[in-house]
Amino acid sequence: MRMTAPLKSIEGTGIANAMADIGRRAKAAARTLALSPAAQRDKALSAMARAIRDSEAAILSANAEDVAEVKAAGTNAAFLDRLTLTPKIVAAMADGIEIVRNLADPVSTVMDSWTRPNGMTIERVRVPLGVIGVIYESRPNVTADAAVLCLKAGNAAILRGGSESFRSGRAIHAALLEGLRAADLPEDAIQLVPTRDRAAVGLMLAGLDGNLDVIVPRGGKGLVARVQAEARVPVFAHLEGVVHVYVDKAADLDMAKEIVLNAKMRRTGVCGAAETLLVDRAAAPTMLKSLVAMLLDAGCEVRGDADVQKSDTRVKPASEEDWPAEYLDSIIAAKVVDGVDAAIAHIERYGSHHTDAIVTADQNAAEKFLSEVDSAIVLHNASTQFADGGEFGFGAEIGIATGRMHARGPVGVEQLTTFKYRIRGSGQIRP
Amino acid sequence: MRMTAPLKSIEGTGIANAMADIGRRAKAAARTLALSPAAQRDKALSAMARAIRDSEAAILSANAEDVAEVKAAGTNAAFLDRLTLTPKIVAAMADGIEIVRNLADPVSTVMDSWTRPNGMTIERVRVPLGVIGVIYESRPNVTADAAVLCLKAGNAAILRGGSESFRSGRAIHAALLEGLRAADLPEDAIQLVPTRDRAAVGLMLAGLDGNLDVIVPRGGKGLVARVQAEARVPVFAHLEGVVHVYVDKAADLDMAKEIVLNAKMRRTGVCGAAETLLVDRAAAPTMLKSLVAMLLDAGCEVRGDADVQKSDTRVKPASEEDWPAEYLDSIIAAKVVDGVDAAIAHIERYGSHHTDAIVTADQNAAEKFLSEVDSAIVLHNASTQFADGGEFGFGAEIGIATGRMHARGPVGVEQLTTFKYRIRGSGQIRP
Repeated sequence: MRMTAPLKSIEGTGIANAMADIGRRAKAAARTLALSPAAQRDKALSAMARAIRDSEAAILSANAEDVAEVKAAGTNAAFLDRLTLTPKIVAAMADGIEIVRNLADPVSTVMDSWTRPNGMTIERVRVPLGVIGVIYESRPNVTADAAVLCLKAGNAAILRGGSESFRSGRAIHAALLEGLRAADLPEDAIQLVPTRDRAAVGLMLAGLDGNLDVIVPRGGKGLVARVQAEARVPVFAHLEGVVHVYVDKAADLDMAKEIVLNAKMRRTGVCGAAETLLVDRAAAPTMLKSLVAMLLDAGCEVRGDADVQKSDTRVKPASEEDWPAEYLDSIIAAKVVDGVDAAIAHIERYGSHHTDAIVTADQNAAEKFLSEVDSAIVLHNASTQFADGGEFGFGAEIGIATGRMHARGPVGVEQLTTFKYRIRGSGQIRP
Repeated sequence: MRMTAPLKSIEGTGIANAMADIGRRAKAAARTLALSPAAQRDKALSAMARAIRDSEAAILSANAEDVAEVKAAGTNAAFLDRLTLTPKIVAAMADGIEIVRNLADPVSTVMDSWTRPNGMTIERVRVPLGVIGVIYESRPNVTADAAVLCLKAGNAAILRGGSESFRSGRAIHAALLEGLRAADLPEDAIQLVPTRDRAAVGLMLAGLDGNLDVIVPRGGKGLVARVQAEARVPVFAHLEGVVHVYVDKAADLDMAKEIVLNAKMRRTGVCGAAETLLVDRAAAPTMLKSLVAMLLDAGCEVRGDADVQKSDTRVKPASEEDWPAEYLDSIIAAKVVDGVDAAIAHIERYGSHHTDAIVTADQNAAEKFLSEVDSAIVLHNASTQFADGGEFGFGAEIGIATGRMHARGPVGVEQLTTFKYRIRGSGQIRP
């Protein structure tokens, strides 16, 4: 039995018109959403969670079709793993929607207010960003995860998933539409691009005639780089996480070991995973051997400078390419540095301004590191794997922004808003 | 006597290298600035104000050379007016620097902080944006105005002024460098592009090898449009101000007249100048004739719909092109609308989301307007000409942003910052 609707065809010359229409409808829906009460959006989110649970069979069946097609074409195991949905993943999608639903309303908040000498009051209030385009790859669950964050913040979403997960995305999208209908919100609030044609991506990057306010790419470096290079609208780009842990001479060795192991090995494929270990020269005699052996014993390849190589025969030599490397694997570069200043200098030279940590009991060294390392997230005595919107208390995130503008670090619902100024006067004119 | 240094030549193939070098040096200076105490930056600003005053003769002499060259080439009076500096303008530049100097330090502020259930504390602190490129046209005083805003917020600036004001810009820049030296800050913190070649602009738009964090275009629509179309880095763009004043049936006529006259005629060339007057149909019998006559008597051309035309024989007919027009002149489009909802609909259809005002004594109508008009600045019973960073209490502004990301409305020192997260733990690892 075919559980998903047949693929609607808008291929060929019709794509430009179809995408322009999607943009216009999203803009109109965004206006409705911006004026909708939080309770109405929350009602839709609750209904979406229910609909996702109720649609488990349809979603898994659609996903099975996607998986079968990809398998027939031949692909690697990692790709199939990302594409394949399970009852557990479907349940997690529904749970995730409820977490977002239960967050505080990020819009309509008065962020600041003041009164001018002439008596006018000025308020800065949060409002939705507008229309958010999400371009993602194989993981079909991004369809729900991204859409509900946009909706919570009062934004319309245009979703363009990977062509391999097209049927899965449609089945998930159908459940999201049920939620919108249940709350009398326009279905255009969450639109799934109804074509596998890559031309649709190009049209989104061009901004859909000014109707797209921001693009969020969710995927590998290739996708993000293409989006950054071609987008004519702002992008929440997530580039590299070349993440450092610096173990200072005043570190507690047990704490350092726990943090280094967790930062590197808890999950090696996440952007907050440590990629370089820096050890204070003054700490090397007492800590280096122990830290390196721990990593090697845990199955992590260690690529070290001359000093690190001396600490364990299993250490491989690091080359200049290792210092700026984002391995996203069980590999770590390791180096001995001359104290906190040298650690900061190394991080500024080779790092990616994403997330970096210091382990030390010395408050001065810690404050210096927190102040001088120019990264979105700097930590003292905690694992870099906390670089995650959920761990920040944002409930969920649509990604981690590595740019400096608007959002930096985890992009949660609050970062999916902008603001406007409301001024109340009593007839003031400007002299 | 030649008061300015001879034009340093980096024309031709050397431009790409020279601009790349400027970018690298700016990035290095930005790092120094980011770690500099506010007092040091303020010391530089005080010294700059003094140096500008002390350099009045040199600045006016350089400006006279620019003016002579432009006059010889033949140009229009408005252009010459923007280019020409006077002792009064030089004094205003120095005063402006002192106003910025006296603003509160916009960086190092803790914007928010919270503690996670695992005991980690997270702080969001303001930090400078980095390197700001300013591309401007004929007004030489932008050299000082823009540079000091960047410096106050701890940013390095790369300034590219109009080629016609090249010598004036150099003389002003020389005074700014005196201030940097007086405070032991790097001269690379404020760099003036040392060539008139337009290729330099293209290189800035390409981002100077990733060393430019944001571009601020200051000039006419042509410049802003080019920058928006070509920039590979974020832009604080100021597009159109199609600004509306809606006079509601519950408006006080005298207040409405004062606000409409001020909003339109105080200065017609500023972005907050009203371009369209909307009058509630229920107010038309008592207010329309009076409002229209007042504008006409003040020398403003009124282009009206059929209803407005009936109010005064001097009214010209409005065409469809008048509703989205930004005249920046003594012209106003005028229309009768069916109440606040129709006013909002008109503004959403034809406006530019810049600044819009309602005049009414009806609180419900006012709140509806303030809530539903999706513009950066919405006012109740006050003139739209308050759309200005100084009038907001920001001290000064580098421009008014019409985009929705990062900065919206006046871009003051606070909007020239970003933030980072500082996390303090006690050995937390992620489960």
